[in-house]
Amino acid sequence: MQRILNNPDDIVDEMLAGFLNVYGNLVERTGNPRVVRAKDIPPGKTGVVTGGGSGHKPAFVGYVGKNMCDAAAVGEICSSPTAAAFLDAFRAADQGRGVACLYGNYSGDNMNVRMAVKMAEKEGIHVETVAANDDVASAPKEKREKRRGVAGEVFMWKAGGAKAAQGAELDEVIAAARKAIDNTRSVGIGLTPCTLPAVGHPNFEIKEGTMEVGIGHHGEPGIEVCGLESAAGMAKRMADIVLGDNPFGKKEEAAVLISGLGATPMMELYVLYNEIEQLFRKKGIHIYKAYVGDYFTSLDMMGVTLTVMKLDDELKELLDFPAQCVGMTQL
Amino acid sequence: MQRILNNPDDIVDEMLAGFLNVYGNLVERTGNPRVVRAKDIPPGKTGVVTGGGSGHKPAFVGYVGKNMCDAAAVGEICSSPTAAAFLDAFRAADQGRGVACLYGNYSGDNMNVRMAVKMAEKEGIHVETVAANDDVASAPKEKREKRRGVAGEVFMWKAGGAKAAQGAELDEVIAAARKAIDNTRSVGIGLTPCTLPAVGHPNFEIKEGTMEVGIGHHGEPGIEVCGLESAAGMAKRMADIVLGDNPFGKKEEAAVLISGLGATPMMELYVLYNEIEQLFRKKGIHIYKAYVGDYFTSLDMMGVTLTVMKLDDELKELLDFPAQCVGMTQL
Repeated sequence: MQRILNNPDDIVDEMLAGFLNVYGNLVERTGNPRVVRAKDIPPGKTGVVTGGGSGHKPAFVGYVGKNMCDAAAVGEICSSPTAAAFLDAFRAADQGRGVACLYGNYSGDNMNVRMAVKMAEKEGIHVETVAANDDVASAPKEKREKRRGVAGEVFMWKAGGAKAAQGAELDEVIAAARKAIDNTRSVGIGLTPCTLPAVGHPNFEIKEGTMEVGIGHHGEPGIEVCGLESAAGMAKRMADIVLGDNPFGKKEEAAVLISGLGATPMMELYVLYNEIEQLFRKKGIHIYKAYVGDYFTSLDMMGVTLTVMKLDDELKELLDFPAQCVGMTQL
Repeated sequence: MQRILNNPDDIVDEMLAGFLNVYGNLVERTGNPRVVRAKDIPPGKTGVVTGGGSGHKPAFVGYVGKNMCDAAAVGEICSSPTAAAFLDAFRAADQGRGVACLYGNYSGDNMNVRMAVKMAEKEGIHVETVAANDDVASAPKEKREKRRGVAGEVFMWKAGGAKAAQGAELDEVIAAARKAIDNTRSVGIGLTPCTLPAVGHPNFEIKEGTMEVGIGHHGEPGIEVCGLESAAGMAKRMADIVLGDNPFGKKEEAAVLISGLGATPMMELYVLYNEIEQLFRKKGIHIYKAYVGDYFTSLDMMGVTLTVMKLDDELKELLDFPAQCVGMTQL
């Protein structure tokens, strides 16, 4: 395992220590070492919280910042934050107007968020939740509530974060975040497996010359293993999946986000985007805004996710609203 | 080769097409398909140009933008842009006050820049150059002029770009860029080799369980191959090399840049920064500003570079000056 680390058990603490020191202008420590808070949260705003397992940088702490999430709960590598961490994140973000907890639909996170919400209510902190479920490959359309959250969470945080920053009440923030994720579909292609630092070897396999379509961020199996395709082939396959699940009418507008999975050279993400852009143009779908980079990764996995959000005027305004965090800056 | 590409011969064109479509707010095409120009260059400013081979994203085109480079010449994968491309970049950036060409010290780039400067002079465009040589491992201290430019170029562009944006004359821009690179030292550690897409297999080897200290961005051999160390060990080794070459006095201040080499998980870069920060604190060196991410990569290589710039008041002011480009945003 060719990696940069000390004792694998310390990786989350050490990563957070480094992160907090680099971005002291944007984020700060709280009393709970697994909770990061935004600096200078405007007084009186509705709180926005996220959280999830580590290993997905810049998610989740990288989306804490100005007009984005106010706090994030941090879990171990690929495992949910504790209920206590979510609760402390709610406490860090609540200013009496309640908290929107915008997280990904995984069983561990669901359980811990549910417990934390109950504990918070006892303290008089009202929390409403949205569990992102943008990953098309993880369950059929009839069972959308079973789908996982992946890079579409970035759009959910952007929409909810902007809405809260505009002074909205909790129910409006929740509605904006829910609309964002309801309008969003993602799919991933894995080219190599990832290695949990504490394990030291890949916990699944992707054979050279093949690719796994619909792979999850923790190596959850996808829809299909097939022969490695060209960038054009991958683009078509991914676009067919996300647009097939949420068809666009002519002249409808999209936000597109292409994220590397951690070990994918940036150059290749631009090559893929070039194909996506051409495909969308042929279909008459206008790409209003595109994001290409490492937005939501999976340790050292090679591969990519495509995320597409169908836009309306409100979502466009929320995307365009200024924001500053490590994962995304909007001027 | 598990990669996202079409015909490897088209990768630079396709990458540029994707890049230009994503960042149409920051950069634009020129008449030369291998020259990218910043949008809305302020009238009358001294020009700043860079350029280099492809495969180092976000370098070089990612440093074209507001208050950074005005234009970049783009080469094939790991090979210099042509003299014609550099010349067109000078033309794109010149507004009658001359052009600072801030690039990396490689023989191909040196040759093509030299030719382009001569051709430009014939057209009445005055160009002065700085060839970055921050890579300590590439030549001994007595032969600094032979050293390669690596991630320290980012500081050179930031300093020169800010100076030009402040309305400085060409000689002042050159002086600022030269001071930045003269005060900067870098060293890299390679953990895996990289693969040129057109070749399809790694063109050198790094054995599992070893690391190559001082590796170049194209796999140029380093100072030493040794057993893989912990993050703490790597940090100490790298800090000893850069600080040994350019010692800091007590209370001197540093800017630190840690860049992944393309396939390094971001989390591990923060772990390494945490070690560097502690080492510097023990030595009494204050880190004024830190940058951790993919700033200057090498295709799909795993590994990292450490870059340290010794600061004075002018360099601090230039780092803090607002800038916006894909590789770095300063608010």
